[in-house]
Amino acid sequence: MPPTFERNETVRIEAFSDGVFAIAITLLVLGIQVPKAHDLGVGGSLGTALLRQWPHYLAFVTSFVTIFAQWVNHHRIFSFIQRTDHPFLYWNGALLLFVTFMPFPTALLAEHFLQPGARIAGGVFAGTYVASALAFKGLWQHASAKGRLLAPNVDGREIVQITRQHRYGPLFYLAAFALSFASVTVSVGLCLGLAVFFGFKGWPTLRARKKSTRADVAGTG
Amino acid sequence: MPPTFERNETVRIEAFSDGVFAIAITLLVLGIQVPKAHDLGVGGSLGTALLRQWPHYLAFVTSFVTIFAQWVNHHRIFSFIQRTDHPFLYWNGALLLFVTFMPFPTALLAEHFLQPGARIAGGVFAGTYVASALAFKGLWQHASAKGRLLAPNVDGREIVQITRQHRYGPLFYLAAFALSFASVTVSVGLCLGLAVFFGFKGWPTLRARKKSTRADVAGTG
Amino acid sequence: MPPTFERNETVRIEAFSDGVFAIAITLLVLGIQVPKAHDLGVGGSLGTALLRQWPHYLAFVTSFVTIFAQWVNHHRIFSFIQRTDHPFLYWNGALLLFVTFMPFPTALLAEHFLQPGARIAGGVFAGTYVASALAFKGLWQHASAKGRLLAPNVDGREIVQITRQHRYGPLFYLAAFALSFASVTVSVGLCLGLAVFFGFKGWPTLRARKKSTRADVAGTG
Amino acid sequence: MPPTFERNETVRIEAFSDGVFAIAITLLVLGIQVPKAHDLGVGGSLGTALLRQWPHYLAFVTSFVTIFAQWVNHHRIFSFIQRTDHPFLYWNGALLLFVTFMPFPTALLAEHFLQPGARIAGGVFAGTYVASALAFKGLWQHASAKGRLLAPNVDGREIVQITRQHRYGPLFYLAAFALSFASVTVSVGLCLGLAVFFGFKGWPTLRARKKSTRADVAGTG
Repeated sequence: MPPTFERNETVRIEAFSDGVFAIAITLLVLGIQVPKAHDLGVGGSLGTALLRQWPHYLAFVTSFVTIFAQWVNHHRIFSFIQRTDHPFLYWNGALLLFVTFMPFPTALLAEHFLQPGARIAGGVFAGTYVASALAFKGLWQHASAKGRLLAPNVDGREIVQITRQHRYGPLFYLAAFALSFASVTVSVGLCLGLAVFFGFKGWPTLRARKKSTRADVAGTG
Repeated sequence: MPPTFERNETVRIEAFSDGVFAIAITLLVLGIQVPKAHDLGVGGSLGTALLRQWPHYLAFVTSFVTIFAQWVNHHRIFSFIQRTDHPFLYWNGALLLFVTFMPFPTALLAEHFLQPGARIAGGVFAGTYVASALAFKGLWQHASAKGRLLAPNVDGREIVQITRQHRYGPLFYLAAFALSFASVTVSVGLCLGLAVFFGFKGWPTLRARKKSTRADVAGTG
Repeated sequence: MPPTFERNETVRIEAFSDGVFAIAITLLVLGIQVPKAHDLGVGGSLGTALLRQWPHYLAFVTSFVTIFAQWVNHHRIFSFIQRTDHPFLYWNGALLLFVTFMPFPTALLAEHFLQPGARIAGGVFAGTYVASALAFKGLWQHASAKGRLLAPNVDGREIVQITRQHRYGPLFYLAAFALSFASVTVSVGLCLGLAVFFGFKGWPTLRARKKSTRADVAGTG
Repeated sequence: MPPTFERNETVRIEAFSDGVFAIAITLLVLGIQVPKAHDLGVGGSLGTALLRQWPHYLAFVTSFVTIFAQWVNHHRIFSFIQRTDHPFLYWNGALLLFVTFMPFPTALLAEHFLQPGARIAGGVFAGTYVASALAFKGLWQHASAKGRLLAPNVDGREIVQITRQHRYGPLFYLAAFALSFASVTVSVGLCLGLAVFFGFKGWPTLRARKKSTRADVAGTG
């Protein structure tokens, strides 16, 4: 058995996680209700019915962008990790638990956004995001503390930057959670903004790191 | 870290996208309603009920062929791309957003094809196709402009041909969108025809390119 | 670009097809209805309600085994194929169309098995199997005729055996389709038996071929 | 054809199984009902409605952890297996049948946990776990008996440990099944505990084995 076995260890967790991310992001659409023809009534217009359920589209887009950003950052983290261990597996499992759960708060928010239960639905929605941000933070902390599971030659500045991102991420989501009791619209807007921001932060650095890796390789050769 | 790291970068996006395409194409079937036994009434026949919901089958097949053709063309594009960057990731994310959304307009069209809301449903259906064609065009334009993300030794004629395809594709879908306000049947028929056509265009060229690549390799050796 | 590019061509179609098979087989369960507590009535027992919907379990198992057997045989076929072309892509697309469709006739059969519409539901169920068997036959015929897309050094006896399997397969499913108008139970039983049989036929030969391949390799070395 | 073909044989079954595990674990969320706004009534609170359906969350988490633990153990088993044969394929198919079925007993338990049918729902839930544990045991017994399908140089102590795990696993699930007729809560709690335990047992040993493998490689070199 060659040493590549070792690498397969994280590859497999990542492939399984990728599958879960891809499925969860695609299931979101099932939460958008198709207005039934017989519910529209005689004078009812489909156009009006579709416009009236705009919170469904907002919830769909917010969760889509969030899961997409989580997938980007999941890859980023795994590009530094070489080994796995027991707690790492469970932190990743906890993260996936919240990712697979997301279609539920998304559909819940869509259904109750314009109803009396809006704040509770918004709280469950943002609360799920808090939970997944904490699982992400736990995953990274466990892997990176004293370089426990990291590859030997990773760029220290990047590690510091990711650590900072996971220090502030849960706090921002906590703010969105608190805001949901004042205004669900602002809370969801903040969630959407955070997803765009973290997706943005997750990718370019990855690019930069690889460019420098190539430079190293060229330099070595 | 070897230079193959670089290649993994697009491989990973492609694998994730493949998963989303495969799941979205398989979820379409959930939009086809199973007629309930107690809804048929005493004299009602299941055969009649199944035939009456023919728009469900039409919408299913049209969206199936469209997503399949998009998958074919997505691969074609990625066979030329070697690098990724930030906007590229977002163009691809936008495309996937519309792909995962497709089960909704498909079920909407199926439900309202024979109802007063048919034109609106048809407009939403064709409109989603317009949006995905524009995302595809944006993805390709960003990647190919000045060869930004392309592999160094790609066949220029192919690039030109793909660029032309993405110049006219959105216009044809825009025509289907406009037509939906005159006749939903013609609009959906045009969408189906476009999917067959673009699926057809996407694959043989890929084959041709590879043949010539093999010839090059043989010639080099 | 190395010659391995060529191999990726079928690998990619196969990976996409695998995804579709895996998703379709897992979606089948959504067709089994969970009896609602308030539908049971005061004296109603959940046990009785669960037993009464036994056709749901029968339909689920039959479709599960069928899709599983199709996956086995899809791999078997692809283990001989080295190239792709245009019609091959479409035959495979047609096969996947029927595979993704299968959750619908499965749920339809489950709902109407004990109702007046049983024969029509059984006909749609077996008819979908006929269609997928024909698509499979077309896929194989196109690939194998004059060895069009096959690897150069395949075992001729195997090719003949697969060709025979696809000659008789659709006929047996056609018999199951015809039987559905006489007895749905017998028709579904035949479908289940055929799936077990074709799953069985698809795998051991694959094993045998590989053993002989290893022998060849050993002999060469 | 190189000897690596052989390895692909199990790789492919594993990849397909991974897909099924990932999809089944993500479909569980569809069993959690979104309380409808118009069902809450005038004085009804969404918060109360969400809290009252706590069995949905318990069933979701229990099945999530169970499928996750099964995935971990599936990998562990496959890390020792080098060949496949006919009965192996069917044992694996039987295991996947129960895995894809799991969203149904999960939703059933959630719906009836606080209703008169609780014990029957709990029995079906734990019974499905018994069935999947037996399929797992059969899979391992067939593969490991006289080292039939194992790689030549596996660690004997590990094999013994896995065999022991599969000897007692089904018995514990059988106890959970029996308990469901006394107390559904205790039965589900035992199922959850078993999943955490077996997930825990499945991974660290895998780590240990690989460390020793690396030691061997280092020793050889």
